[in-house]
Amino acid sequence: MSSDGTTSFAFDESRSADLVVAAMAGAKNERLHQVMESVIRHLHAVVKEVKPTEEEWMAAIKFLTETGHMCTERRQEFILFSDTFGVSMLIDAINHHKPSGATETTVLGPFHVASSPIRQMGDTINLEGKGEPLIVSGRVVDEAGKPIEGATLDVWQANSEGYYDVQQKGIQPDMNLRGRFITGADGRYWFRSSKPLFYPIPHDGPVGALLRNLGRHPYRPAHIHFIVSAPGYQAVVTHLFVKDDPYLESDVVFGVKDSLVCEVTQHDDVKAAAEVGVENPFWSLQHEFKLVR
Amino acid sequence: MSSDGTTSFAFDESRSADLVVAAMAGAKNERLHQVMESVIRHLHAVVKEVKPTEEEWMAAIKFLTETGHMCTERRQEFILFSDTFGVSMLIDAINHHKPSGATETTVLGPFHVASSPIRQMGDTINLEGKGEPLIVSGRVVDEAGKPIEGATLDVWQANSEGYYDVQQKGIQPDMNLRGRFITGADGRYWFRSSKPLFYPIPHDGPVGALLRNLGRHPYRPAHIHFIVSAPGYQAVVTHLFVKDDPYLESDVVFGVKDSLVCEVTQHDDVKAAAEVGVENPFWSLQHEFKLVR
Repeated sequence: MSSDGTTSFAFDESRSADLVVAAMAGAKNERLHQVMESVIRHLHAVVKEVKPTEEEWMAAIKFLTETGHMCTERRQEFILFSDTFGVSMLIDAINHHKPSGATETTVLGPFHVASSPIRQMGDTINLEGKGEPLIVSGRVVDEAGKPIEGATLDVWQANSEGYYDVQQKGIQPDMNLRGRFITGADGRYWFRSSKPLFYPIPHDGPVGALLRNLGRHPYRPAHIHFIVSAPGYQAVVTHLFVKDDPYLESDVVFGVKDSLVCEVTQHDDVKAAAEVGVENPFWSLQHEFKLVR
Repeated sequence: MSSDGTTSFAFDESRSADLVVAAMAGAKNERLHQVMESVIRHLHAVVKEVKPTEEEWMAAIKFLTETGHMCTERRQEFILFSDTFGVSMLIDAINHHKPSGATETTVLGPFHVASSPIRQMGDTINLEGKGEPLIVSGRVVDEAGKPIEGATLDVWQANSEGYYDVQQKGIQPDMNLRGRFITGADGRYWFRSSKPLFYPIPHDGPVGALLRNLGRHPYRPAHIHFIVSAPGYQAVVTHLFVKDDPYLESDVVFGVKDSLVCEVTQHDDVKAAAEVGVENPFWSLQHEFKLVR
């Protein structure tokens, strides 16, 4: 009702978000209403703060349209936006609050493959043999520090040129640099791989252009992906990062957590190399995963 | 710097937006930095308020992707979202603050054609002859109420079935229900048309589905579009709305302003109808446009 007593739903800049929220009063899905009310109030707040010109608003529409057009079966440019502007990590944090000391989570990323090969402890996942040899080892334990038997470590990483096997079908062997390892009674794991390197996220689309315009680089620091799970425990989706990587403090997807950064030590020891079946010199990385019930 | 004095850019849920804003510190374009800071702070605030599950976040990504895929040369689904959630009207308001009494603005909409035919006062724009006859008339004046000579009224509207000519190429005559009229020394205009009807915005895409899920209808109340311009005056992009339209109080694009709602009067007068060259009975609508320098 307006001040003269007549009903009025006429547009009013000062209560623009209220008008839109009022129009959704008939929503039957309460959760959708709640989400859209938050989206609309913040969207109108952005517009009032920024005061875009009509040309700027059309540039925003164009950005969204080009981002949509970039999306295919093999490329998800909106997820790339979500990743590179910290939203994916925030969603991950909100959904995976862990007790102190438990292994922390980070983003899944787009390169996980659901059923990678089960491998034996000590196997190599580096099927093409490129890069510098790396031994990865450690234990999977519970909150009390006791080993977990039958834990699965689902592992994947990029090769020494920064590409995952699924990005280079026909160039890399299938299932290169990925596999699943299942712990025995001692909770221990170990496998052979190559030392990961930093690499850029796909940056030939509108999100890459936006990052450039914001003075940001497109790199992720070197890491190995893990999903560690065991019956009766919460699975943890995470990475191990290589300490001293130049992009550790500026990961384009904000995925780094201090507890996931690991020392990677170089060994020049012909005998030790022969014992673990790698060329000398080689690198090693150790990490203990702690799961919660 | 973290509390132990070591540099740390590790992800931290409580200051997630700060981390992303800090990453944009190298942006050379200050305006882009300002806009993206506002977008990121509000986007993270929405996520913290709503606490989406990972499934809900993927549903949002899917909505944006489908909205992008719906956009073509002829269809702009992101603008449809902007229109139907009040953002386009807000952008319009922010960019076109007018002194009290001046003709108010509303959205341009997607159906304007840049160079429609110049017509003579009294001409009909209803080239297919459908619908109920309507006489539209009035004056274009300045802030002091003096007539403006040489003002252009660029007019367009939907036909009696709710479609614009550009939506029905080959069905409606080209340039049906559109044209430009130029005022003489008296500032007066008049033309013949058909009484507009309410119609739905395109609602077969993701935005239409969202409106349905929010309990909203897709209709715009009956209106005629105008761009009124004159040398030395600010052009005004606006509509005239038909009073008593059932959707006047729930325009899906929030375009209605009280000052733009016009009485439409029916006349049953064979002689008057003959004088203005329409069939009896007919309707009339009068409005005075006030431009500012």
